[in-house]
Amino acid sequence: MTTMNTYKHEVKYYECDRMGVTHHSNYVRFMEEARVDWLDQLGFGFEKIEAENVFSPVVSISCEYKHPTTFKDIIDIEVKISKMSEMKFEFEYTMRSNGKLVCIGHSAHCFIENGRPVAISKRLPELYSTLMNRLSE
Amino acid sequence: MTTMNTYKHEVKYYECDRMGVTHHSNYVRFMEEARVDWLDQLGFGFEKIEAENVFSPVVSISCEYKHPTTFKDIIDIEVKISKMSEMKFEFEYTMRSNGKLVCIGHSAHCFIENGRPVAISKRLPELYSTLMNRLSE
Amino acid sequence: MTTMNTYKHEVKYYECDRMGVTHHSNYVRFMEEARVDWLDQLGFGFEKIEAENVFSPVVSISCEYKHPTTFKDIIDIEVKISKMSEMKFEFEYTMRSNGKLVCIGHSAHCFIENGRPVAISKRLPELYSTLMNRLSE
Amino acid sequence: MTTMNTYKHEVKYYECDRMGVTHHSNYVRFMEEARVDWLDQLGFGFEKIEAENVFSPVVSISCEYKHPTTFKDIIDIEVKISKMSEMKFEFEYTMRSNGKLVCIGHSAHCFIENGRPVAISKRLPELYSTLMNRLSE
Repeated sequence: MTTMNTYKHEVKYYECDRMGVTHHSNYVRFMEEARVDWLDQLGFGFEKIEAENVFSPVVSISCEYKHPTTFKDIIDIEVKISKMSEMKFEFEYTMRSNGKLVCIGHSAHCFIENGRPVAISKRLPELYSTLMNRLSE
Repeated sequence: MTTMNTYKHEVKYYECDRMGVTHHSNYVRFMEEARVDWLDQLGFGFEKIEAENVFSPVVSISCEYKHPTTFKDIIDIEVKISKMSEMKFEFEYTMRSNGKLVCIGHSAHCFIENGRPVAISKRLPELYSTLMNRLSE
Repeated sequence: MTTMNTYKHEVKYYECDRMGVTHHSNYVRFMEEARVDWLDQLGFGFEKIEAENVFSPVVSISCEYKHPTTFKDIIDIEVKISKMSEMKFEFEYTMRSNGKLVCIGHSAHCFIENGRPVAISKRLPELYSTLMNRLSE
Repeated sequence: MTTMNTYKHEVKYYECDRMGVTHHSNYVRFMEEARVDWLDQLGFGFEKIEAENVFSPVVSISCEYKHPTTFKDIIDIEVKISKMSEMKFEFEYTMRSNGKLVCIGHSAHCFIENGRPVAISKRLPELYSTLMNRLSE
């Protein structure tokens, strides 16, 4: 099984707030960046899924903030599939910076075709089996 | 007890993504806007808390996305205190637009003084009792 | 001729940076908000132009920053048509807050149909004459 | 003289708008990223200037948009000092992607100490001479 690289996000000046730390809303964006990269590494780039006329909205997200980060910090993001069903899959994001745990995130997603939810196992079987394999990690 | 007004956010063009809908990360920002307004209505503006040399980081957030919104939609946000302890308080956000439930959000917060968590009941007793009263709603 | 209302933007917490002031990139977004509102007031809402299968990309922008603003400041934005040709039109934005001039902005726009620039006077004659009338202000 | 590396920004999903292209306001942020990197390469990191209790607000910015970019495009940004005086310095940004010129930007900056503009040549002579050398490029 492919060894996955963690995703690295360097905090930008404009991502920091009045308290001098990365604004909490930005971690949701870092999760998206890491997820896109993770799927790319597995050969399921955004274009490939979009080309199927299927799209994958975010069903829910959560973040637990453990430690602040700031301008120029490198956030190292490890992505895992944490749950998986016919209709929904969930990622877990472990974000570390300077040797500290900074944030644990989760996001859940489904697949939609022509405005209706579709079973991933049927509509995108190759993606489904790849994600299922990763779930056992 | 003061009757609270809901907060209204009109979706901006730059808040919408390639799929034509409000990018999911922006709801976390709408929650912040609504929270600031809610505390203002109760007489606990940001300046007032900042002037105490106390600051209030976000401990965790979550969003469940129920229905997409888009450019020019008015999102009506109802804020409630959903949990409260000596050290932590939690808001619930019910967001509606065009008669539909669009998102349910939660955020948890603590208070920090000189780098250490403080008991709200002792450090900001007036705010504590106001929030406690609202909890019973 | 319709009297135009200025557009008001209240600075959000997440729009302020590490220096405690509104991040300079956000003024470009405030310009877009004010422009959308100005066209709405004249009866040329975004939907109406989009429905013509014409779209209007930004050709250039500029901002001169005169005075910083911060969280909760109300920025009052006056929009004017400052230049107008068959192919391009330009807005000027005068932003004031707390009795001070905070920023002067400009943006230039053209119209595109099927990937090619179109003459506004021919493709959208009603909009063209409305904008021309406003130019003489 | 140090050979400078161009700065690379990969367009994120959340940076694209309803038209499917990078929202124009984001180029102002890419300019900031490239400027920070350019100054880092010359040994004038943000921390170093901040440690002098001097800060450097943006006086003006402009962008000419030449060609759109979209999700996953790599924007290659070349930074140059284009103007320089005792009180103000100006950067030029040439942004290219997929062999096309996408945007030309400019930003002007001054230095402020205790709320007042300062002469760079006197307050930060090392930075001043470095920038002057680069001006002759």
